[in-house]
Amino acid sequence: MTTYRFAVNVLPRDGILDPQGRAVEQSLDHLDVAGVAGVRVGRRVELTVEAPDENTARATVERLARDLFSNPLIEQATVETLGGAAPTTRVAAAR
Amino acid sequence: MTTYRFAVNVLPRDGILDPQGRAVEQSLDHLDVAGVAGVRVGRRVELTVEAPDENTARATVERLARDLFSNPLIEQATVETLGGAAPTTRVAAAR
Repeated sequence: MTTYRFAVNVLPRDGILDPQGRAVEQSLDHLDVAGVAGVRVGRRVELTVEAPDENTARATVERLARDLFSNPLIEQATVETLGGAAPTTRVAAAR
Repeated sequence: MTTYRFAVNVLPRDGILDPQGRAVEQSLDHLDVAGVAGVRVGRRVELTVEAPDENTARATVERLARDLFSNPLIEQATVETLGGAAPTTRVAAAR
Protein backbone atom coordinates (compact mmCIF):
# COMPACT_ATOMS: atom_id res chain seq x y z
CA MET A 1 0.00 0.00 0.00
CA THR A 2 1.24 3.45 -0.88
CA THR A 3 -0.01 6.83 0.23
CA TYR A 4 -0.99 9.49 -2.27
CA ARG A 5 -1.83 13.11 -1.57
CA PHE A 6 -4.58 14.86 -3.53
CA ALA A 7 -6.41 18.15 -3.58
CA VAL A 8 -10.04 18.62 -4.53
CA ASN A 9 -11.03 22.07 -5.79
CA VAL A 10 -14.72 22.87 -5.64
CA LEU A 11 -15.93 25.99 -7.43
CA PRO A 12 -19.29 27.32 -8.56
CA ARG A 13 -20.09 26.19 -12.09
CA ASP A 14 -19.79 28.70 -14.91
CA GLY A 15 -23.01 30.64 -15.13
CA ILE A 16 -23.97 29.95 -11.53
CA LEU A 17 -24.17 33.10 -9.44
CA ASP A 18 -21.29 33.37 -6.96
CA PRO A 19 -22.27 35.86 -4.25
CA GLN A 20 -18.94 35.51 -2.42
CA GLY A 21 -17.03 36.26 -5.60
CA ARG A 22 -19.18 39.31 -6.27
CA ALA A 23 -18.62 40.49 -2.71
CA VAL A 24 -14.85 40.24 -3.15
CA GLU A 25 -15.01 42.20 -6.41
CA GLN A 26 -17.00 44.95 -4.74
CA SER A 27 -14.58 45.08 -1.79
CA LEU A 28 -11.66 45.47 -4.18
CA ASP A 29 -13.32 48.50 -5.76
CA HIS A 30 -13.59 50.08 -2.32
CA LEU A 31 -9.93 49.23 -1.60
CA ASP A 32 -8.78 50.85 -4.85
CA VAL A 33 -7.44 47.59 -6.23
CA ALA A 34 -7.94 47.83 -9.99
CA GLY A 35 -7.84 45.27 -12.77
CA VAL A 36 -9.26 42.32 -10.84
CA ALA A 37 -12.27 40.52 -12.32
CA GLY A 38 -13.88 37.11 -12.61
CA VAL A 39 -13.52 36.28 -8.92
CA ARG A 40 -14.89 32.85 -7.98
CA VAL A 41 -14.78 31.63 -4.40
CA GLY A 42 -14.85 27.94 -3.59
CA ARG A 43 -13.40 25.29 -1.33
CA ARG A 44 -10.23 23.24 -1.39
CA VAL A 45 -9.87 19.92 0.40
CA GLU A 46 -6.48 18.23 0.68
CA LEU A 47 -6.29 14.61 1.73
CA THR A 48 -4.05 11.55 1.83
CA VAL A 49 -5.28 8.21 0.51
CA GLU A 50 -3.66 4.86 1.11
CA ALA A 51 -4.20 2.48 -1.79
CA PRO A 52 -2.40 -0.22 -3.81
CA ASP A 53 -1.84 2.14 -6.75
CA GLU A 54 -2.50 5.70 -7.83
CA ASN A 55 -5.50 4.90 -10.03
CA THR A 56 -7.31 3.26 -7.13
CA ALA A 57 -6.46 6.18 -4.86
CA ARG A 58 -7.65 8.69 -7.44
CA ALA A 59 -10.90 6.78 -7.96
CA THR A 60 -11.61 7.06 -4.22
CA VAL A 61 -10.92 10.79 -4.29
CA GLU A 62 -13.08 11.36 -7.35
CA ARG A 63 -15.95 9.57 -5.66
CA LEU A 64 -15.58 11.68 -2.52
CA ALA A 65 -15.29 14.84 -4.61
CA ARG A 66 -18.52 14.08 -6.40
CA ASP A 67 -20.56 12.57 -3.58
CA LEU A 68 -19.38 14.44 -0.49
CA PHE A 69 -17.30 17.52 -1.17
CA SER A 70 -19.45 19.15 -3.84
CA ASN A 71 -22.98 19.69 -4.99
CA PRO A 72 -22.66 18.69 -8.66
CA LEU A 73 -25.79 20.63 -9.57
CA ILE A 74 -24.14 23.98 -8.90
CA GLU A 75 -20.47 23.16 -8.30
CA GLN A 76 -17.62 21.75 -10.34
CA ALA A 77 -15.06 19.60 -8.55
CA THR A 78 -11.59 18.96 -9.94
CA VAL A 79 -9.03 16.55 -8.53
CA GLU A 80 -5.37 17.48 -8.45
CA THR A 81 -2.47 15.16 -7.69
CA LEU A 82 -0.12 16.85 -5.24
CA GLY A 83 3.61 16.33 -5.35
CA GLY A 84 5.35 19.61 -6.01
CA ALA A 85 4.81 19.53 -9.77
CA ALA A 86 2.21 22.30 -9.80
CA PRO A 87 3.47 25.85 -10.39
CA THR A 88 2.75 27.01 -6.85
CA THR A 89 4.55 29.56 -4.70
CA ARG A 90 4.14 30.20 -1.02
CA VAL A 91 2.98 33.62 0.00
CA ALA A 92 5.18 35.11 2.71
CA ALA A 93 3.28 35.59 5.95
CA ALA A 94 2.56 39.16 6.96
CA ARG A 95 3.96 40.10 10.31
CA MET B 1 -2.23 45.09 -20.70
CA THR B 2 -2.69 41.37 -20.55
CA THR B 3 -5.03 39.32 -18.42
CA TYR B 4 -3.73 36.52 -16.22
CA ARG B 5 -5.74 33.96 -14.32
CA PHE B 6 -4.65 32.83 -10.86
CA ALA B 7 -5.88 30.65 -8.04
CA VAL B 8 -5.23 31.29 -4.36
CA ASN B 9 -5.37 28.26 -2.07
CA VAL B 10 -5.89 29.00 1.60
CA LEU B 11 -5.42 26.14 4.08
CA PRO B 12 -4.94 25.86 7.83
CA ARG B 13 -1.25 25.95 8.73
CA ASP B 14 0.41 22.70 9.76
CA GLY B 15 -0.18 22.15 13.44
CA ILE B 16 -3.27 24.36 13.52
CA LEU B 17 -6.38 22.41 14.44
CA ASP B 18 -8.73 21.95 11.49
CA PRO B 19 -12.19 21.09 12.82
CA GLN B 20 -13.69 20.77 9.31
CA GLY B 21 -10.99 18.32 8.29
CA ARG B 22 -11.56 16.26 11.43
CA ALA B 23 -15.29 16.25 10.75
CA VAL B 24 -14.71 14.91 7.23
CA GLU B 25 -12.43 12.16 8.56
CA GLN B 26 -15.05 11.10 11.07
CA SER B 27 -17.79 11.08 8.42
CA LEU B 28 -15.65 8.84 6.22
CA ASP B 29 -15.36 6.30 9.04
CA HIS B 30 -19.14 6.21 9.28
CA LEU B 31 -19.41 5.83 5.49
CA ASP B 32 -16.97 2.90 5.47
CA VAL B 33 -14.44 4.74 3.35
CA ALA B 34 -11.07 3.45 4.50
CA GLY B 35 -7.54 4.68 3.97
CA VAL B 36 -8.25 8.41 3.97
CA ALA B 37 -6.26 10.58 6.38
CA GLY B 38 -4.77 14.03 6.77
CA VAL B 39 -7.86 15.86 5.57
CA ARG B 40 -7.47 19.65 5.51
CA VAL B 41 -10.33 21.90 4.44
CA GLY B 42 -9.69 25.37 3.13
CA ARG B 43 -10.76 27.88 0.53
CA ARG B 44 -9.88 28.45 -3.11
CA VAL B 45 -10.29 31.78 -4.86
CA GLU B 46 -9.84 32.07 -8.61
CA LEU B 47 -9.45 35.48 -10.19
CA THR B 48 -8.35 37.30 -13.31
CA VAL B 49 -5.90 40.19 -13.10
CA GLU B 50 -5.18 42.69 -15.85
CA ALA B 51 -1.59 43.94 -15.69
CA PRO B 52 1.32 44.90 -17.96
CA ASP B 53 3.18 41.66 -17.22
CA GLU B 54 2.82 38.45 -15.23
CA ASN B 55 5.10 39.52 -12.37
CA THR B 56 3.00 42.61 -11.71
CA ALA B 57 -0.18 40.55 -11.87
CA ARG B 58 1.23 37.95 -9.49
CA ALA B 59 2.36 40.64 -7.05
CA THR B 60 -1.22 41.94 -6.89
CA VAL B 61 -2.55 38.44 -6.25
CA GLU B 62 0.03 37.72 -3.56
CA ARG B 63 -0.91 40.92 -1.78
CA LEU B 64 -4.61 40.04 -1.91
CA ALA B 65 -3.86 36.48 -0.78
CA ARG B 66 -1.97 37.74 2.27
CA ASP B 67 -4.06 40.76 3.19
CA LEU B 68 -7.59 39.78 2.24
CA PHE B 69 -8.08 36.11 1.46
CA SER B 70 -6.26 34.60 4.43
CA ASN B 71 -5.46 35.07 8.08
CA PRO B 72 -1.67 34.56 8.04
CA LEU B 73 -1.61 33.75 11.73
CA ILE B 74 -3.46 30.47 11.24
CA GLU B 75 -3.65 30.01 7.46
CA GLN B 76 -1.17 29.46 4.66
CA ALA B 77 -1.97 30.96 1.26
CA THR B 78 -0.37 29.73 -1.96
CA VAL B 79 -0.73 31.33 -5.37
CA GLU B 80 -1.08 29.18 -8.46
CA THR B 81 -0.87 30.35 -12.07
CA LEU B 82 -3.73 28.88 -14.06
CA GLY B 83 -3.44 27.97 -17.69
CA GLY B 84 -4.04 24.26 -18.13
CA ALA B 85 -0.52 23.21 -17.13
CA ALA B 86 -1.53 21.80 -13.74
CA PRO B 87 -2.24 18.05 -13.55
CA THR B 88 -5.95 18.49 -13.01
CA THR B 89 -8.83 16.35 -14.14
CA ARG B 90 -12.49 17.19 -14.14
CA VAL B 91 -14.73 15.03 -12.06
CA ALA B 92 -17.72 13.85 -14.05
CA ALA B 93 -20.95 15.30 -12.73
CA ALA B 94 -23.32 12.88 -11.05
CA ARG B 95 -26.70 12.82 -12.71
